[in-house]
Amino acid sequence: MGDTLKKYKMIIQYEGTRYQGWQKQITTENTLQGKLETLLSRMEQRKVEVQGAGRTDSGVHAYGQVISVELASGRKADEIRDAINQYLPEDIAVLSVEEVSERFHARLNAVSKVYRYRVLNSCIPNVFERKYVYVVSDELDLKAMEQAALYLCGKHDFQAFCTKKKSKKSTERCISKIDIERVCDEVRFTYEGNGFLYHMVRILTGTLLEVGLGKRKAEDIPNILESKNRAEAGFLVPGCGLALMSVKYNS
Amino acid sequence: MGDTLKKYKMIIQYEGTRYQGWQKQITTENTLQGKLETLLSRMEQRKVEVQGAGRTDSGVHAYGQVISVELASGRKADEIRDAINQYLPEDIAVLSVEEVSERFHARLNAVSKVYRYRVLNSCIPNVFERKYVYVVSDELDLKAMEQAALYLCGKHDFQAFCTKKKSKKSTERCISKIDIERVCDEVRFTYEGNGFLYHMVRILTGTLLEVGLGKRKAEDIPNILESKNRAEAGFLVPGCGLALMSVKYNS
Repeated sequence: MGDTLKKYKMIIQYEGTRYQGWQKQITTENTLQGKLETLLSRMEQRKVEVQGAGRTDSGVHAYGQVISVELASGRKADEIRDAINQYLPEDIAVLSVEEVSERFHARLNAVSKVYRYRVLNSCIPNVFERKYVYVVSDELDLKAMEQAALYLCGKHDFQAFCTKKKSKKSTERCISKIDIERVCDEVRFTYEGNGFLYHMVRILTGTLLEVGLGKRKAEDIPNILESKNRAEAGFLVPGCGLALMSVKYNS
Repeated sequence: MGDTLKKYKMIIQYEGTRYQGWQKQITTENTLQGKLETLLSRMEQRKVEVQGAGRTDSGVHAYGQVISVELASGRKADEIRDAINQYLPEDIAVLSVEEVSERFHARLNAVSKVYRYRVLNSCIPNVFERKYVYVVSDELDLKAMEQAALYLCGKHDFQAFCTKKKSKKSTERCISKIDIERVCDEVRFTYEGNGFLYHMVRILTGTLLEVGLGKRKAEDIPNILESKNRAEAGFLVPGCGLALMSVKYNS
């Protein structure tokens, strides 16, 4: 009867434009976790819960969100992938399904996450990328932003770089890498770290952009970190430019 | 008063998804030409007509459509571009504006056009490219398609490769190049020619795909051309995978 539950790791892609973020909420069902749980529960004819590695915000995309989920299905991994894709809306897709140890947890076992923020640095729009970029038409000083990024790398208390939630949890995180590169008329910010606080990548990007626009100096970053005060950091860039690229695990 | 009309060449980008093609129609205003003419007429406060180089079909995109238009505006080219972009919907954009000779005509002066058809050759969907590709999950034989493409290059009567319109115009065209390349999980067909008949690029692609899938042989192409019979050629692939990439002129 295939009643034994098996644990699966799945890589999920989505365009976040029309969703209110990853995490299931009591008040609304238009979340990515909600969509996936509803679909999988229907397929399995029982209540299925899904754990996502990253709690992406409203409007944020994912190229490589990772979930862990238990399924009773006796099917092969690729068959499960195809079956789910058949029923998902066209802005969500399962890229891969892999059977894993029953102890695997997508969020708790994640070692690091890679997020990318795309800025279209041009006064000419791009109709094909419009939902995936944030437009900054003024010139950006890449060298200054790279210098500022160096101050952000490493282990710090990032309280100044997050929107406060009612929580007494630690706001210390470690960013292992920030890459800033120009690709044609785009500037891409890629962040890798062991975890990111609420709005953290978007406030980091807003602060770096202010440095790039000459509104702040790279050398101001240590003071902002030390202040632990959200008001000292830069603006919150919109969610549309952000995407969760991948999640890394210790094999 | 800036009443003297000047001729401009503009490069236009659009996502064709929600439009009924380029060409203005009597019955509907949801065409790209219609949108542009309405906007420009409002800006100029007189009836403005726009000539487009390529009459893209319903759902077909453009990275480099070219238009010619007369404007009374005394503004600089870049200011005209920015002013138009400010009022265009976000799925249409003007990439460049250039003042040209009053005799310039975007369609009549075009020497060649480049169209690209994108096939996602995978059993895994791509949510970010879904509106710009056609999905073929079965394996494609690139060598066989390239061989078939060679038979299509050059000057031929392409009557078999077009949907008939009530017209006695010549169906002879010259294709100077067909490139077929695999880019990750995509197969891209790029066509350059002096002109393309109604549905021609899409029927050419459908026929090449049938060769790639082993349903036809490359050596059948000369017979299809000779038959001048639409029924002998392959299927019409959907418009979403097609884009007008660029239009070339003799400088």
